Amino acid sequence: MRKSFRLGDIVKRLGGELIGDADVRIHQVASLESARPTDITFLAQSRFLPQLDQTQAAAVILGPEARDASSLPRIISANPYAYFARVSAFLNPPAVVKPGIHDSAVVDKSARIAGSASIGACAVIGKHAQVADHASVGPGCFIGEAASIGAGSRLHANVTVYHDCRIGARCIVHAGAVIGADGFGIAKEEGVWRKIPQIGRALIGDDVEIGANTTIDRGALDDTVIEDGVKLDNQIQIAHNVRVGANTAIAACVGIAGSAKIGRNCALGGAAMIYGHITLADNVNVSAGTLIMKSLEQPGTYTGVYPFSSHQRWLKNAVHVRQLDELARRVRELEGRLGKVERGKT
Amino acid sequence: MRKSFRLGDIVKRLGGELIGDADVRIHQVASLESARPTDITFLAQSRFLPQLDQTQAAAVILGPEARDASSLPRIISANPYAYFARVSAFLNPPAVVKPGIHDSAVVDKSARIAGSASIGACAVIGKHAQVADHASVGPGCFIGEAASIGAGSRLHANVTVYHDCRIGARCIVHAGAVIGADGFGIAKEEGVWRKIPQIGRALIGDDVEIGANTTIDRGALDDTVIEDGVKLDNQIQIAHNVRVGANTAIAACVGIAGSAKIGRNCALGGAAMIYGHITLADNVNVSAGTLIMKSLEQPGTYTGVYPFSSHQRWLKNAVHVRQLDELARRVRELEGRLGKVERGKT
Amino acid sequence: MRKSFRLGDIVKRLGGELIGDADVRIHQVASLESARPTDITFLAQSRFLPQLDQTQAAAVILGPEARDASSLPRIISANPYAYFARVSAFLNPPAVVKPGIHDSAVVDKSARIAGSASIGACAVIGKHAQVADHASVGPGCFIGEAASIGAGSRLHANVTVYHDCRIGARCIVHAGAVIGADGFGIAKEEGVWRKIPQIGRALIGDDVEIGANTTIDRGALDDTVIEDGVKLDNQIQIAHNVRVGANTAIAACVGIAGSAKIGRNCALGGAAMIYGHITLADNVNVSAGTLIMKSLEQPGTYTGVYPFSSHQRWLKNAVHVRQLDELARRVRELEGRLGKVERGKT
Repeated sequence: MRKSFRLGDIVKRLGGELIGDADVRIHQVASLESARPTDITFLAQSRFLPQLDQTQAAAVILGPEARDASSLPRIISANPYAYFARVSAFLNPPAVVKPGIHDSAVVDKSARIAGSASIGACAVIGKHAQVADHASVGPGCFIGEAASIGAGSRLHANVTVYHDCRIGARCIVHAGAVIGADGFGIAKEEGVWRKIPQIGRALIGDDVEIGANTTIDRGALDDTVIEDGVKLDNQIQIAHNVRVGANTAIAACVGIAGSAKIGRNCALGGAAMIYGHITLADNVNVSAGTLIMKSLEQPGTYTGVYPFSSHQRWLKNAVHVRQLDELARRVRELEGRLGKVERGKT
Repeated sequence: MRKSFRLGDIVKRLGGELIGDADVRIHQVASLESARPTDITFLAQSRFLPQLDQTQAAAVILGPEARDASSLPRIISANPYAYFARVSAFLNPPAVVKPGIHDSAVVDKSARIAGSASIGACAVIGKHAQVADHASVGPGCFIGEAASIGAGSRLHANVTVYHDCRIGARCIVHAGAVIGADGFGIAKEEGVWRKIPQIGRALIGDDVEIGANTTIDRGALDDTVIEDGVKLDNQIQIAHNVRVGANTAIAACVGIAGSAKIGRNCALGGAAMIYGHITLADNVNVSAGTLIMKSLEQPGTYTGVYPFSSHQRWLKNAVHVRQLDELARRVRELEGRLGKVERGKT
Repeated sequence: MRKSFRLGDIVKRLGGELIGDADVRIHQVASLESARPTDITFLAQSRFLPQLDQTQAAAVILGPEARDASSLPRIISANPYAYFARVSAFLNPPAVVKPGIHDSAVVDKSARIAGSASIGACAVIGKHAQVADHASVGPGCFIGEAASIGAGSRLHANVTVYHDCRIGARCIVHAGAVIGADGFGIAKEEGVWRKIPQIGRALIGDDVEIGANTTIDRGALDDTVIEDGVKLDNQIQIAHNVRVGANTAIAACVGIAGSAKIGRNCALGGAAMIYGHITLADNVNVSAGTLIMKSLEQPGTYTGVYPFSSHQRWLKNAVHVRQLDELARRVRELEGRLGKVERGKT
């Protein structure tokens, strides 16, 4: 049976204003629709008010403007979604890391593993690598020579961290992520490609989350840098010498080409693509599926997506996209000719 | 030497109408061009008729409309491509799973592994996990706590299945796939992102195939669900709380954002992207490279792709895409002015 | 302390013309901005001349046209970037492979591992697999039955090579790459998908580099082929029966659909997508984010990207993309009407 908490004790711990029965017991968080009578739920947007009426939840988290929208026991908070995140984190703490090195792990004798750290089964830790206090390296992970994993960070299964790279404190790295592989550095000479050794590192700040199968390349000469608090979804590709500013959030399938600089507090939508060697200012939002080809110096939201339609309609319209220059020329010509006609009449 | 079969025995086993020598022996399937005199081939589309004339194959599978298109020994079937699939499956059965747990695998003593199941070298199986009859867990896989793998399913090397997730029966999961990593759930508070615990699961139905390095996130509150018979290619990203309807096929590099619902018998082309919180009806086809931003209630094919051209021509035309509103305004104005001129003449 | 070399000795070994002090000692390569007084740097493009004035480097590599652009000790080379690549490779040789099979590796007794090869911790090598001289298989890799790894090739951690596939000599394969998973071959029959066994192989030539989490599927009937000298970045998807011509370079996140043929010396920009069953000629460049839907018979650069703008501006313009056919019709009508007016005036 899950542990449960009095609603009043939750408010005591996390703040907010309590309205209604403080003694109702909360076992878990849930959505409005699926909440059971032992769950707490939340209302993030007024368009979900109809579901609020129907919810089976024991209690609900509401914004100040909706304080009377329900007769359920409720917590009023200026930011109901963030409050909900805190309740959920309280009710669902991360799995406790059991300290110790699994018998099947292969840890070089020069590596420094904190006594409170956990090294999973079949993980492999290279020479002079470091794993700090309460950090956890999952099964099948590989930590390269002289790489370091910060305190409290958790690497899920089958993560690879290349030599000399650094993961900060309290990071979460999901399965299959690859940190510090060689950047794509090649130079053509006499018809064949020569590899340029990638001697920079990948440096990941504190409180960064990295999604499953995301790849962050090491720098070519200087380092690739992911600043503190950055959140990366799955299958993102970050090329060599990119810098991602603090607290920027990047959705899945985004690609950032070499040496691009992304500002702080940016948001990149899914499958957005960023050219190399450009700079995005702080607080820039890029819409899903948008390719950014030049630097953005102003905050704001930027979009470039071909609007879909039925395939038949697309066929009819798309042919003109490749003749827009000609269409514009014809409009200019019409304007000139009509002007002449109009002037002739005067 | 490969085992071979009489053509007549293949028809006896798999159906279809046999024309010609039933005693010809078939060793393998092949394409029209590369077939050797011991192979059976097929004609899927009439545009390949010239290659049919040239083929070295011992026999061929034809549709009823092409029954006389070749003098080779042949099998007539209403669906030659599907018949070919069945012949190939008959001639190329999956590798037999050798039951047993490899010495180097690390299996928690509370895990339940069927006697007929196979656990590969260096695989790691967590507490209370289950692996059913004739299932096979490849080398280097990790199966998290209380996760389950259905009967006859095969996980290739280095697959990760997170805690509590479920893979159905007769599934195939290719190398590097990650099932059940945390969804991208974050809430901003005072300028930093708070993680929202992802407490749902990823539930994979029966007869599902999952491609290499594909990622399917667990649900935030409720579950992520992949229904029976879904076929997923490589490097697909499926976000938290998505539902993919039965027998839908999704090509490589597709991304589906959180809480999207994809109908049954849909087909998503490569690199298609689906917004979050939208619904696609059954039998929807999305073309490759198309971003779908809103729900689709009608079956049909939908496309939104910028037509490519030479770079020079693209440059000349693309500039007008960003001024279409202005161009349309000018056309409206011309219409008004010309109407005035015409009326003045009357 | 790093080993260092006299500038004169570098020129003696790698060619080029030396101007200035031959005795200056070079420890490492660096960019113009970050070079320290023990580094050598290079000038690839004249737009970086201002940084050349400021550099702290000990020496610099210049093109003939810039031979007097600096008073530093310098090397003049017709191709400064390629020369730099060679200096860097000389100063940063790949990590030496320590021969031997790690105690924790699991190597089938029928596998043939060269005495000079290295098999990392927890790697798993299948029956009849071959690993040639000086090749290195990283920790956690899986090499399937009868697969082969050529001389001097290096597989980083957690790479999967399926049965019967072949990696040539001097290849580099980065972490998480999957070579030879099943192609996406399915045929519909009575509403469900039948799997078509993928009996071809993936054949990788010599001197190929494969990025992290890139996937290259095995062929359906014939083989998938990556020719010599091809360079692949991260998270690329190459489907079954694709052929990529020699010395072609492909940036991250590209997808190539089944049976496409890419010529030699092509360059595909990041996230470009190539339809199945089409052919790209030699020396074709595809811009980032471009979807190629039909064969390209002429060398050149091809682009098809929706130009981004502010979201507001995009909204205003994008609506017309779906009505271009109507707009073109109205322009044609205006032309007809205006012609009538003009003729009426004459």
